[in-house]
Formats: sequence, C-alpha cells, structure tokens
Amino acid sequence: METVTLGPTGTYSHRAASAVTDDGISFVESVRAIADAVANGDADRGVVPIENSIEGSVTETLDALAEVDLAVVREVVTPIRHALIAQSENFDTVASHSQALAQCRTYLDENYPDVDREPVASTARSVEIAREDPTVAGIAHPDNADGDLQLVASDIQDKSSNSTRFFVVAPPSERSEAGGKSSFVVYPNANYPGLLLELLEPFADRDINLSRVESRPSGERLGDYLFHIDVDAGLYEERTQAALEEIEALAENGWVRRLGSYDVEHVV
Amino acid sequence: METVTLGPTGTYSHRAASAVTDDGISFVESVRAIADAVANGDADRGVVPIENSIEGSVTETLDALAEVDLAVVREVVTPIRHALIAQSENFDTVASHSQALAQCRTYLDENYPDVDREPVASTARSVEIAREDPTVAGIAHPDNADGDLQLVASDIQDKSSNSTRFFVVAPPSERSEAGGKSSFVVYPNANYPGLLLELLEPFADRDINLSRVESRPSGERLGDYLFHIDVDAGLYEERTQAALEEIEALAENGWVRRLGSYDVEHVV
Repeated sequence: METVTLGPTGTYSHRAASAVTDDGISFVESVRAIADAVANGDADRGVVPIENSIEGSVTETLDALAEVDLAVVREVVTPIRHALIAQSENFDTVASHSQALAQCRTYLDENYPDVDREPVASTARSVEIAREDPTVAGIAHPDNADGDLQLVASDIQDKSSNSTRFFVVAPPSERSEAGGKSSFVVYPNANYPGLLLELLEPFADRDINLSRVESRPSGERLGDYLFHIDVDAGLYEERTQAALEEIEALAENGWVRRLGSYDVEHVV
Repeated sequence: METVTLGPTGTYSHRAASAVTDDGISFVESVRAIADAVANGDADRGVVPIENSIEGSVTETLDALAEVDLAVVREVVTPIRHALIAQSENFDTVASHSQALAQCRTYLDENYPDVDREPVASTARSVEIAREDPTVAGIAHPDNADGDLQLVASDIQDKSSNSTRFFVVAPPSERSEAGGKSSFVVYPNANYPGLLLELLEPFADRDINLSRVESRPSGERLGDYLFHIDVDAGLYEERTQAALEEIEALAENGWVRRLGSYDVEHVV
C-alpha cells in the first residue's frame, strides 16, 4: 500500500506517515499534490498536516479537502521535537525552516548568539545541508542524526507542549462510519447573521462536542464561506446522522461533504 | 513610523506592508518575532498574514495573537499574483517556495514539463537566486522583475481568485473601537458540548455576522481550546459591547481579549 506525504525524507509528515504504514512512502511538495495523488489512484493513502506551522498550512489542507473528494480515515498527533544536528560542534551557521528557527529562538539566543541563522525550504533540507557542509548545523527531529551527523542538543524548541496533527486521507470509497471523531465540510451557499450558529445548533442539541470549527472563503464571492467542522462523535451514531440531516436542510442551496469517521493515534 | 513584517524584500507581506506605510519597513523571519517586536516597542506596526499559505501560517498568527497582547488596527486584502521571473527564457530550473510552485503547477506542467522544480525558503529568495544564476527562474510577484531580470510570464497561478489577508498590529495602547470589523480571542477554560454555540449566540441574538471562527488548542491540556472570532461590527457599537459582556460571563474562569476594531483595505 503506497502512502504519499510531504518530503523530503525526515520531515515531520514523513514521521507521521511512518507511524501508520510499514509499506512504501513517496514524497511530493504540496498538500494539494497529495490530495490529487490519492484521488487519482496514484497512492492508496495520503498524510496531510492539519495543525502544523512547518510543513503546509491549515489553509492549504482545508482548501484541498474542500476541493478534492477524499475520505479522512485517521488522525495522527505527534509532538514537535527539534534537535540541533551537525557533523561537530564547530559550526558557524544554523539552517532550518524559518518556523523551526523561530520555535528554537530562546535556545539559540542563549547558546549560540553569534551564529548565523539561515532559512531554508524545510527541516529535512537543513539536515541534507549539514551532511554536506561541516560549518552548518540543521534543526530537525532528532532521528535525523545518523551517519556522519551527531546530535548536538535535543528538545531545543521553546514550548515543549507543542504538537502537530495530521489527517490520513484515502479514496472516497474507503470512507468509514466507525471511529470516535468525524469531519465534515459544509458549504451553505448563503450568508446571514446567525448562519454559523444555525449550522452548529444541531450538534449542541444532541450533546455532540465540536472539536474544531474553521471557516474559509469559498472563492465564489467575497463574504461567502465554507465551514470545516470536526465533532467528537461517529457517523455510525444515530444522533450524528440526525444532526447532519438538519444541516443538509440548512445548506439546501449548497452542499455537505462527510469526510468520514476515524480514531486518533498519538505517536511519540 | 517603523513597520516590521516577514522578509526578505519582495515577499507578499512586504507588499502588504508597503500599502499601509510610506515609512521604514524592516524584516524578520517569523510571525512571533513580528509580534514581539511590536509588543517590545522595537516597531510601531507589524504586518502578519492571517490567510496566506506562503509566508507564515494561520496557526502561527493565531497563536501569536493569543500569547502576545497586541491591537489589530487594520486588515489588508491583496490578490496572489505569481510571475515567472528570470534573466532570459533559457533556464533549466524553476525555484520558489513550495506552495508557490504548487499554485503554479498547471502552468508549469503545460509550458515547462521538463524543467526541474526546486523548493526554496521564500518567493523572495527565488528572485535572489534568479538574479545570481541565469539557469534559474523564480516565481514571485511581478514587481520583482527589475534590473537584469525580465518577466517571462505573468499571472501563472492556478486560481485567479486566490487572495491573501493580513492584519496590521500595533501596541495595545492603540486599540481602536472605530471600524466596521472587530476581532476577539476567547479562552473559556472549559469544555462541554454546546460551549462554542453558547459563545456565538450573543452575536446571533443581535444580528451580528461572524466572518471568521477558528479554534486552537490552548496548550494547557488536551481538548482545551481558545476561540478566535471576527465579527462584522465595531466595538463602538452598543450591541457588540452587550454581546461581549455575555461572553465574558460564559468565560468567567478564563478570559476574553478584545483585539480591536478596524476597517478592511483591498490592495491590487
């Protein structure tokens, strides 16, 4: 079973993908390319970031899920762990993705105030550079310290509680109704005060907890929105189906997409 | 008046900053660094992306607005316009930020199927590389084509309707109650079914339209959320103040932050 995610080797997306498959993993450079590969049948599974400031953005993933018909079959939560990786402690530049550099700012200010900081395309790219150039240290997950590279310091990120979340996506035919969480995209094709409230009431009326609500411009016209809704309930539950029927009535000029039900896996 | 935003010269953030100030603009490498610079008094204004898949992420901006006390004083909306920029048409590599490469995929597949694509740290960095290396073309805003660089093609992005949104932030003492939109961060320090609905009802009851609602993990404990809410009403309005009083009562164990009221500026 082929899984596609954001490359190159060693990204946090690669780690999340490794946690859900023992088979082949291939890499592309954008969330949309992952969505297209799964939709076209070029891959069986895709792993996309939903809360991650380093690889891809929430925005890009929300738009891909609204535009490409896919099933969400699992959620993977993994902590952000940044390590300083180099051939030795004699480096004069620290390279990494700009967000990783920012997340390690306190450590770098205290320990390497005079070392240059250089933003590069990804944390994984910074490891490649450190492998080639003894004067450069990279910042990436500690598992990247192999071969000639050593772990200069671990867990150098500012906030230890930071975590990243990924969805595992599959073709729509593999959509499941089992699992404790469910995701939907709702396009009401309407805009009036209280609309979002009306869309959320059917869940509250049935004691279904909302774990995430995000709005995105539809791209159709200014002020026109899509809503991404995650709930702590499965599609197999009668109350979830009843809530969705009410929402479909509210969105009668638009559409409701059931992305699927799934369980959450925590990876260390 | 010093304004700080995401660098280097030529980013979309730089363009948005140029639209709101005629004075000095300086650059940093993360949204959090912008927030800190304004909070510390190192800059008078900051320009941060709120919906932009290229520089910074929604996630990073939401967290900075929750953690650093700032006022939002304006919103700037600008279209994404990507151009192919090089010394001549004889290039064998197209470099840019991975999201920009992804947003131009249809054009590149049709017109340059055999040219290598290389992700780099930013669209602005791709222009710097194209300026140094005649074999590399960059993808960035067309205004970057100056000096030895020519515009090989304009508006090569897949979706012409794509736009990016930025907030202009200022020290909390400059918070305004005038302006047609307002933003808040609400931390209820509680989690039960219907909570988000209860937080939104005070707006709906007063015919106040919600233009954006996003939830973010609080970092305190799993399943504990902050809510970012934008409404189409000013803080100067009695109905907005009345709604906020109800919300403050609901969040009595947490807090409500008024980011301010502001107007939206569209930049071409």
